[in-house]
Order: sequence, then C-alpha cells, then structure tokens
Amino acid sequence: MDVLEYTPTRDQYVYTFGGAVPALRIKPGTALRLWSDDAFGGALRSVEDLSSAKVDLRFVNPQTGPFYVEGAQAGDALVLHMVALEPARDWGASATIPFFGGMTSTDRTVSLQSALPDTTWIYELDRARNTVAFAARHSDHRIELPVEPMLGTVGVAPAGNEVRSSLVPERFGGNMDAPQVRAGATVFLGVNVEGAMFSIGDGHYRQGEGEACGTAVEGAMTSTVIVELVKGGAPAWPRIEDDSHWMTVGSSRPMEDSWRIGNAELVHWVAELYGLHTMDAYQLVSQVAQVPVANVVDANYSVVVKVAKALLPPAEAFDGIHADLRSRARLL
Amino acid sequence: MDVLEYTPTRDQYVYTFGGAVPALRIKPGTALRLWSDDAFGGALRSVEDLSSAKVDLRFVNPQTGPFYVEGAQAGDALVLHMVALEPARDWGASATIPFFGGMTSTDRTVSLQSALPDTTWIYELDRARNTVAFAARHSDHRIELPVEPMLGTVGVAPAGNEVRSSLVPERFGGNMDAPQVRAGATVFLGVNVEGAMFSIGDGHYRQGEGEACGTAVEGAMTSTVIVELVKGGAPAWPRIEDDSHWMTVGSSRPMEDSWRIGNAELVHWVAELYGLHTMDAYQLVSQVAQVPVANVVDANYSVVVKVAKALLPPAEAFDGIHADLRSRARLL
Amino acid sequence: MDVLEYTPTRDQYVYTFGGAVPALRIKPGTALRLWSDDAFGGALRSVEDLSSAKVDLRFVNPQTGPFYVEGAQAGDALVLHMVALEPARDWGASATIPFFGGMTSTDRTVSLQSALPDTTWIYELDRARNTVAFAARHSDHRIELPVEPMLGTVGVAPAGNEVRSSLVPERFGGNMDAPQVRAGATVFLGVNVEGAMFSIGDGHYRQGEGEACGTAVEGAMTSTVIVELVKGGAPAWPRIEDDSHWMTVGSSRPMEDSWRIGNAELVHWVAELYGLHTMDAYQLVSQVAQVPVANVVDANYSVVVKVAKALLPPAEAFDGIHADLRSRARLL
Amino acid sequence: MDVLEYTPTRDQYVYTFGGAVPALRIKPGTALRLWSDDAFGGALRSVEDLSSAKVDLRFVNPQTGPFYVEGAQAGDALVLHMVALEPARDWGASATIPFFGGMTSTDRTVSLQSALPDTTWIYELDRARNTVAFAARHSDHRIELPVEPMLGTVGVAPAGNEVRSSLVPERFGGNMDAPQVRAGATVFLGVNVEGAMFSIGDGHYRQGEGEACGTAVEGAMTSTVIVELVKGGAPAWPRIEDDSHWMTVGSSRPMEDSWRIGNAELVHWVAELYGLHTMDAYQLVSQVAQVPVANVVDANYSVVVKVAKALLPPAEAFDGIHADLRSRARLL
Repeated sequence: MDVLEYTPTRDQYVYTFGGAVPALRIKPGTALRLWSDDAFGGALRSVEDLSSAKVDLRFVNPQTGPFYVEGAQAGDALVLHMVALEPARDWGASATIPFFGGMTSTDRTVSLQSALPDTTWIYELDRARNTVAFAARHSDHRIELPVEPMLGTVGVAPAGNEVRSSLVPERFGGNMDAPQVRAGATVFLGVNVEGAMFSIGDGHYRQGEGEACGTAVEGAMTSTVIVELVKGGAPAWPRIEDDSHWMTVGSSRPMEDSWRIGNAELVHWVAELYGLHTMDAYQLVSQVAQVPVANVVDANYSVVVKVAKALLPPAEAFDGIHADLRSRARLL
Repeated sequence: MDVLEYTPTRDQYVYTFGGAVPALRIKPGTALRLWSDDAFGGALRSVEDLSSAKVDLRFVNPQTGPFYVEGAQAGDALVLHMVALEPARDWGASATIPFFGGMTSTDRTVSLQSALPDTTWIYELDRARNTVAFAARHSDHRIELPVEPMLGTVGVAPAGNEVRSSLVPERFGGNMDAPQVRAGATVFLGVNVEGAMFSIGDGHYRQGEGEACGTAVEGAMTSTVIVELVKGGAPAWPRIEDDSHWMTVGSSRPMEDSWRIGNAELVHWVAELYGLHTMDAYQLVSQVAQVPVANVVDANYSVVVKVAKALLPPAEAFDGIHADLRSRARLL
Repeated sequence: MDVLEYTPTRDQYVYTFGGAVPALRIKPGTALRLWSDDAFGGALRSVEDLSSAKVDLRFVNPQTGPFYVEGAQAGDALVLHMVALEPARDWGASATIPFFGGMTSTDRTVSLQSALPDTTWIYELDRARNTVAFAARHSDHRIELPVEPMLGTVGVAPAGNEVRSSLVPERFGGNMDAPQVRAGATVFLGVNVEGAMFSIGDGHYRQGEGEACGTAVEGAMTSTVIVELVKGGAPAWPRIEDDSHWMTVGSSRPMEDSWRIGNAELVHWVAELYGLHTMDAYQLVSQVAQVPVANVVDANYSVVVKVAKALLPPAEAFDGIHADLRSRARLL
Repeated sequence: MDVLEYTPTRDQYVYTFGGAVPALRIKPGTALRLWSDDAFGGALRSVEDLSSAKVDLRFVNPQTGPFYVEGAQAGDALVLHMVALEPARDWGASATIPFFGGMTSTDRTVSLQSALPDTTWIYELDRARNTVAFAARHSDHRIELPVEPMLGTVGVAPAGNEVRSSLVPERFGGNMDAPQVRAGATVFLGVNVEGAMFSIGDGHYRQGEGEACGTAVEGAMTSTVIVELVKGGAPAWPRIEDDSHWMTVGSSRPMEDSWRIGNAELVHWVAELYGLHTMDAYQLVSQVAQVPVANVVDANYSVVVKVAKALLPPAEAFDGIHADLRSRARLL
C-alpha cells in the first residue's frame, strides 16, 4: 500500500471543522502520512514566549486537512486507523494561558479574580530514551516522562452546516483531547457531509487525563493514518476501538452530560455487539466500564467510557474492520 | 498484632455519618475485622425481590461502626489501611432502582418521563475461580467477571455538627464508590470531631467506574483494616495511597466541580511532596494525572485524580505510613 | 390571637436544621414574634470588621428555633405565614468572604487563583425613608435603596436523620435565600420528623436575585409568623403562595437541576390545582412561568419557579389556607 | 424615516448565524420591517401535525437575514432597537418535541427512558382582546393568555469563522429566548465580522421564562427594527437596555456558568456606567440584580441579569443611544 504524504504550508492551516475547502481528495483505503503543527502553531519556542503575547484562542489547533473522502455521505462511518504517531520536533511546549484551563476561572466559569501567571514550559525530547523532560520554572526540578504520542483533535465537518472552532469537541469529534487516540487505535466518526471532510491536529507528546492546565506537551506530529469508510454505519458520537477496549466519547457540559452521552453510547454498542437487551447491557456496563476523563478545559468537556474486551466474549464491530486495519498497518 | 472482630446486629446498623454513638472505642494501631451488610441490607436475594418494594433510599448502605479512635481530634488525619476485603456471601445483588442511577432522570435531574423497569440481577460468586457471574434477565447470556472487592463507603463524622446519609460522598469521605478503596490501599480522612467516628460499608464484589446503574455488585463484606492516626495531618479532602499511586477524591456537583476539587488537592499534594511551586505542580500534574470517574449517581458525584508513583521521583507522604502499614499488614 | 415572643440568647443560637432540642413547643395556629440575629451573628459591625477574622462558615446563619409543632408528623405540610418582617437593627452588613460567593472560585468550584479582597460594607437604615444606604468602599458613591425585608432561611428538620448546616438549602427548605419569603407570603414545607422542628433566620434587609457576592444586606430581624399544619399535605419540595403567585423552589447543583426540580413541582401543582393532564400542565407552565434565581452561592443553588395567579382561573391550594392566614394576620 | 421591508421566500430562509450571504446591505440608521416565519417554518398548523414527522431540529428557527450593515467591523457594537413586534398570523403553535425540552432527557442529558408523548398545541390569536388561547389536549380547559410578543433569536455572525445553528445562543446572541427582547428594547451585540451579518427570527407570541417544554407560542412575526452602530463599542456578551432596566445575557452550560457570565458582565457595566470600583459594583449588583432565567432548553442555557434603572442614579450607556432610538421610533 502506498502512503500519501501531506504537509500543509502555514497558509494552508485550517482552524475549523467544516467551512474549508479540501486539502486533498482521497479514496477509502488510502494511507496518509500527515504533518501537523502544534496547538500554538509553533509560536511558543522558549519559556520567554508567553501565550498572552503569541496565542489567539480563536486560532489554535491548526488542522491538517480537511480531506475529502470519495464516496462518503451523511450516515456513513468514517474510519481512521492510527498507524503511527511520531514527534516531528525535538521539543514540546505547554503553557498556562490566562483564563484558560481547569484550575482557573475562564470566559465561561467567570470570576472577578486575577489570572494565574502566564507561564510557558518547554519539554525537550530525548528520542533515544523516548522521554520528554519536565523542567520546573520555579526550582531546579527536572523529571523525565515517557513520550506517549496522541492526537488532541480528529474530526469531521459538523451537521447542519455548522462550522466549529478546532478548539471544540462535539458529536463530530474535534478537540476531544483523548489520550486513547494513539497508535493502534481506530476512530469511528459519523459522516455529516459529502466527503466527510476530516482533519487532524493538536499532537501531544504526552498528556494527563483532564488536560488540567489546558495544554498538553504540545508538539508537531507526523501521523500515519489509514482511512476507511463503512457505508451506513454512522455512530451518533465518536467511537474508538483498539486491541484491548471498546470506547465511546461524550463531549458536552456539564461533565455529567458528557458522561451520560458516552455511557449511553457504550450501553447501546454493547447491546448491539452481544445481542443484549438494553437493560441487561446497562447492568453489564455498570459493572465493567472504565471512565477516564479526557479533558475538562475545552469548550466542551470530554469523557471516555470504555470496556476491556478481555472481560467480554469475543465480538466484532463494523465487520471487524479494526483487526483488518491492524493487519494492513503492519504492511506499511 | 491482634485483630479485633466486630459484626453488627441488624439493630446496630447505622445509616449516617455522624449522629451515632460509637460501636467500639479503639486505640490507633488497632487492626479490625469488620463484617458489613450489603447496600440493600440484604433485602435483594433473588431476581424476584424488587427495589421498589424492598429498598428505602433513605436507609441504604448500612454502616459498620462508627468507631471512636482514641486521641483523634479535629485537624488530625485518620488513616485506614485496607488489609483485606473478602466477600462474606456467595452472591451479590444489583438493581435499577426507579429514578436512581445515571441513565435515568432522578429526584434532582427531574423529568416527566416514566421510570426505567425496576429490575434485579443476582451475581453468583465462584470462590474457586474468583468470579461473579452476570446473568442477563432478558436473554440467556452469562458472563463471568473477576471479583474485585472494594468498599463503596468509608467515612468519618462531618464537620459543623452535620449528620449525613450514608448515601452521600463529601469532604468527610462517605459514599465515594471509588474502586480504588481496595485491599492494599491506605485512605486518609480529615478528622472533624473527637474520636473521628469512622465507619465502613457498601461492599462491592466489583463495580465499573461511574457505577452507572446506581448499584454495583453489592455484597456483604469482611474487611480487615488497620487504623492509625497522624496528628495534625488532616487533608482537606480524602486522599488514598497504594503501592502504585497518589490519589485524591473530589465529591460534588456538577462533576467538573468534583474534578476541580480532586485536581487541586493533587496539585497541592504533589507540590508538597516534591517541594514544587504550585504553578510547576499544576503543570506537572497536567501531564501525568489519571482521572477515573468513581460515581455519577450518588448525592454527589465522585472523581478520583491520581498519579503513578513510577512517573515521579520517590517520595513519602504522612511520614511514610503507607509503607509501614503494608509491612504491618503482612504480619497479621 | 396572642403572639408568643421568643428571642434566643447567644448560647441558644442553632446552626443546623435537625439535631437540636426544641426552643419551644407550640400548637398549630400559634402566632410567633421571633428575633433572629444576622447571618454573621452580629460580628460585622463596621467596615473594619473583616469576615476572614470574624466569620466561620461552619457557623453562620444562626437559627431562631427550632420549634416543635404539636401534632406534626412526617407527611404533613408545615405552613408558615409571614405576617411581618421588621429590621431589628439600624444597620445591615454585607461582605465578600474569601472564596465564598458567585464571582469567585470557591471550595467547590476550586481554582488556584488568589481570593478577592475581603471587604465589608455597612448599610445604614433610614426608618423614615425605609431605605438602606449603599456606601462604596473605593469612592464616595452613596445610593439609597428600598428596604425589602426577607428571610434567607426557613426550614424544618431533614429526613433520614440528617442534620444540615444552616448554610444549606434543600428539600427541607433551609438557606434558600429567596426574596419571595417576605411579609404576606405563606411557606409550605414537608414535615419529616415528629414536631417538624422548624426554625428561621438569616434576615435580609434587601437582596438581589442570585445573592451574587454571597451575602445580602444581612440584618437582625423581628419576624411575625403564624404557624399552621395541613395533615398529610407534605409537598416534596418547598412551596410558597402569596396573593399574586404560586411558587416552588428547587435547590440543588448544577443550577439546571434546581430549575428542573422547581419546574416539575410547579407542573405537578398546576396539574393538581386545575385538574389538568400532566402534559397540558407542562405546556401551560411553559408559557406562563417566571423563573427568578434565588441564590447561586450557597451549598446548593436555589431557583424559584412561579406563575401569576392573575393569568390562571381562580384556584385554592391546601384548602385555601393562605387566604385564611391573610385574614388572621390582619387581626394580629 | 423610511422603513425598508423584507420578507424572505422559503428558499431564502437561513438556519445559521454566520455562513450565509447577505439578504440586504443596509446603512446604520435604517429602519427595517421584517417578516419572519415561526420556529417550525410553519410546519405545525394543527394538533394533528406532530413534530417528529414535520420538524428536523437541525433546521429550525429560520432566520430572516442576514443583513450586512455598512461600516460595521469587528469590535463595534451593533445596535438593534425593537420598535414593534406584531404577530403575522392568527395562530401560534407549541409542541413537546421528543427528547427536546426541559422536563425530558435530551441528546445531552441522555437517559435510557422513553420519550414524552409528541404533542402539539395550537393557540388561536384574538387580536381584539390581544390574547392567545391555551386549549388543553387532554381535557376541555381553555385559558386566554395575554399576547406578549418577543423574538427568540437575534444574533450576528460568530467570531473565528464559526457558523452556528440558529438553535444556539452564545456570545453572538442567537437563540437566547429572552422575553426581554420585545418592543421598546435595544439590543447591543458585539460585531465579529465585517458587516455584522445580523438576523432575527423565532418570534414568540408569548413565552414563560425557562421555555420549559422547549417551545414557546411560536408564531410568524412582523418586526420593526432600527439598526445602528457604535464604533468600537462591542460588548463581550449581549446587552439589552429598555426604559426600565440595564440587562446582560449569558448563555452557556451548566446554568451557573450562564449566570456567572451575565452577572460579571453586569458588574463591569455598572462599574463603567457609574465610575465604581469593581468590588463596589459587585456589592451593589448583589443587592439590586434581578435574574430571570430565559431558557433551560437550548444548546446553551440563557440567563438574563438585570437591574432596574429606578434603583440607581441616572446614567447613559453607549452615549444615550437607547433614548435617541426611542425618539426616532416614535416618528416612524
């Protein structure tokens, strides 16, 4: 299988889901190798670069894309298999943007208090050790942390002609900031418009669940992705499958609504996978689910609800496409 | 070390944190072996027993206790080390109580819709295989699941002379329904009243994160617990330490507030453990935290925020009492 | 009708709903004239008195009571008719307590930001003009505002043996901070324990809806109240009737849940008052309700949902007891 | 002053804020007379017309517009003075759309419960009496209610190239469903894009606060509006002024965040209008604000925070443009 490479120039960066012309038209089955800039568009390169000076929250998470998938129509499931996610720079950046993040008042959870200090951290990447180094700004602490690459954003064009900022996670995917979107995972998104118009970006060299300060170890990323399509298979909300888990993602506010969405989706999925009555699936999921929070800092909060395949009998979703994609990925 | 045994008679069941006379007075250092009934007081014994007929939500989670700890005063940390949690019956029960749980409107998230069907599931325990068996009510599915015993409730008397239902998780611990409260874990609770007056109950043979349907695999439990006291060490909110993680628990509503509490507590704890500036601890926690949701169904929602010790340099909390208790537990 | 007077001494102040011995035993039909101290227990008497030095949030809103109402049993409706609320001092106080209030992070909506300045305002009362004077602390502005006396707290002992801080609004009433609890209003509370054990306090000389800064123009109050009982008439949540409106109050978190409670209660009440089907009552209430927020700052947020009697056909609730109490009040 | 009339044909209906080509280009100072269809696009004309058959929630609230205002640039305040709102049909419609509204689970507050009955109510308009008639569907009740026309939606194109459904209230205005948007009111919206691109729609012949069932008495409307521009005066969130009140509107989730937004905006506005320190404005607003909930049913919940001008000294906002527009309106 060939791999199609695409690296956007800066003027090709896109800051929305929906509303942009396609970067490429591709056929289902295509493998893409995509370069994406970091959430800040590369603007924070040293601890002297402050987000208040260099970052406009209306234009973060530059997207690589959108890609028009031939044959994709509303009601289909777009399938994106993450083959590999590789740091494309030797450093990542994180910052506490004023009035943005989880431990501060924001433009929604408004207060009259002063902002926390606008601070930038630079994480050096050690490719040999596969670590990024946290270097404290107020003391000499330095802690090496494993690189665990993930994509903060992966989404399609929304329904109803909406166009949403790449800061938003929603039904269409988007800025879910879910660490589960990593190499080996297959993401299923409901298609809303002809061509699906998906894009990716917001690479993280690592991220804690919740993404508490509002930013991960943000880094440019080279992502290898195989694109597939399941006709008529659109899930209502994003689903993720990897070798070990069935997963759903809910993104809304307040956070219990995100959970309600994700949990109901998982109940319905388990009911369908195993031929269970909804009440039985509800009971079963209640005893086996894991619920890692993805982010509590974006325009919507995202919660992942998942169940280990090892706890349940064997099953196949979307005609077993995940296993098939894993095989194809090995041949790349 | 001797082990003090205590099994309450039915008229000794307590349904509140605070407001009850001590079951026993014990000295710090005591090991207890405690029998606790299940959340339903044993009322659901077959799938014919319906919660609407047999369960009054004002009187669930019967507590074993409270225990008066000599020398405990407001401002101290009560330390409860879970040595062993063992199922005390050969079956557990779960139920979808009308207008209670996460996938239904409730007495708070009110709607005008009809209740979901009041349904009971009985899980048979296989001690040899260490499993409980999910048996579907609407089909023939049967799935064996690993027993993973935990305590849904562990708490002390609240501050300010409050008395709270054993259905409530809060600053004083209580009905957190956190799967992390299992054998090998040490729970730290801030003492509010003389003697601390702690109790435990609500054993679960297993529970999914979120406890979606409102009830776990509820089962009577025999819990072996070593009780200690750290003078003057009261955490603001419950903390948990085990061999692998530092953990905090926030319980409030909406769920983002639970997270805010837990995350801020972990930031402060990490800052203190490692001598980091708060902003650096905030940054570090943002990249390493795990955030498993505990429950979205109780009077308050509970969120666990934790960090793997393996990611951080060695450190000791509360003068290393967890390691000490692990050693002592081995001698029991 | 005689009026029974009661003024607590300082050591008779009560800081909880439930958990206290009765101050008095009274018969239904009794008129009471009750003195209550302000929310701060009179601790803030000049702008030099700061809440951080003088106020402990576990012990605010000192209650006058509780009163044991003879014959009151769980399931009855306690009826409290507010005959007159009169300022008992010539000044009121307000303060921005650190990490308390609506425009700051709190102990629930936690952030890492610094607290707002701890500031006290003293409002002088002009009895002739019936005004209190706002005097700015940072400039010379002075604005006279009408006195509009109300009671922030009115509640009974909770169900299930709970004891709650007088800072809490809930199903049992409590710290609802609803400006609608004023002279001429009749409050209906579901009785949970023998004797009902009601208390009042937290007088406000005036308060904006939402009580944004966390405190109103707090003032000692002399309240004249007629106490009645409707056997078997317990509402699930507090209801208020005055000459112009039917009102319900929901208190929970997040605020939409407070609204859901209040709105569902009003739908059910309107259905019952007019013999309407629930769906028709839902439709009707949707077109006629007024929804003034009461507080967004207490342990629970309170929302009033009300409908103007003038919009609907004549009806009587609780056998017309409000009109009867209005008549009796005129004879006092 | 001339009045420019505009009635869209059905294929000119617009279902978004942003993303549409201008219907007209107008100069500041223009008076418009605009016809707008009802929220359902006129699809519910009898109680036999059910929303599940005739309404697609992605395409409701057809907008009349957008209008390009010459000279309007990002950072300006668009000023829309509501001169008159007149019912354009002799009936209005309301409906309980499945899984939409405040007393049901929704696509966000998900449950596994069944939907409420899909029901339509038709309100006949009596122009002589100026009433609409509620006719119960399950009994013979009929209640005449005063017509109180308002516009549910009034908004501009969003910032950051977003395009939002006309079901959404946000920073850009939109589907706020605030009864305060009525004849005599002046609405101030921050301009985000060249030309402002405002539109209106979703006329309500009357609506209760909260819009509990999700729909008001929805009706086609003829709106007379004078359009003005204040260069550089963009408020962060919508503001409304009428003869009696200063008002702000916050729209977010959970509802306390909507309130926080609106309340902070009012504090800042009052500080600016009267030259008060922020803390003094915070205190003052706390004692004088009124907080009527607008909607708890849309994609975001909207809360109005307002203060009566009569309580405060005289002041002028936006150079007194509201008074000026009132004068100009009288000359139409």
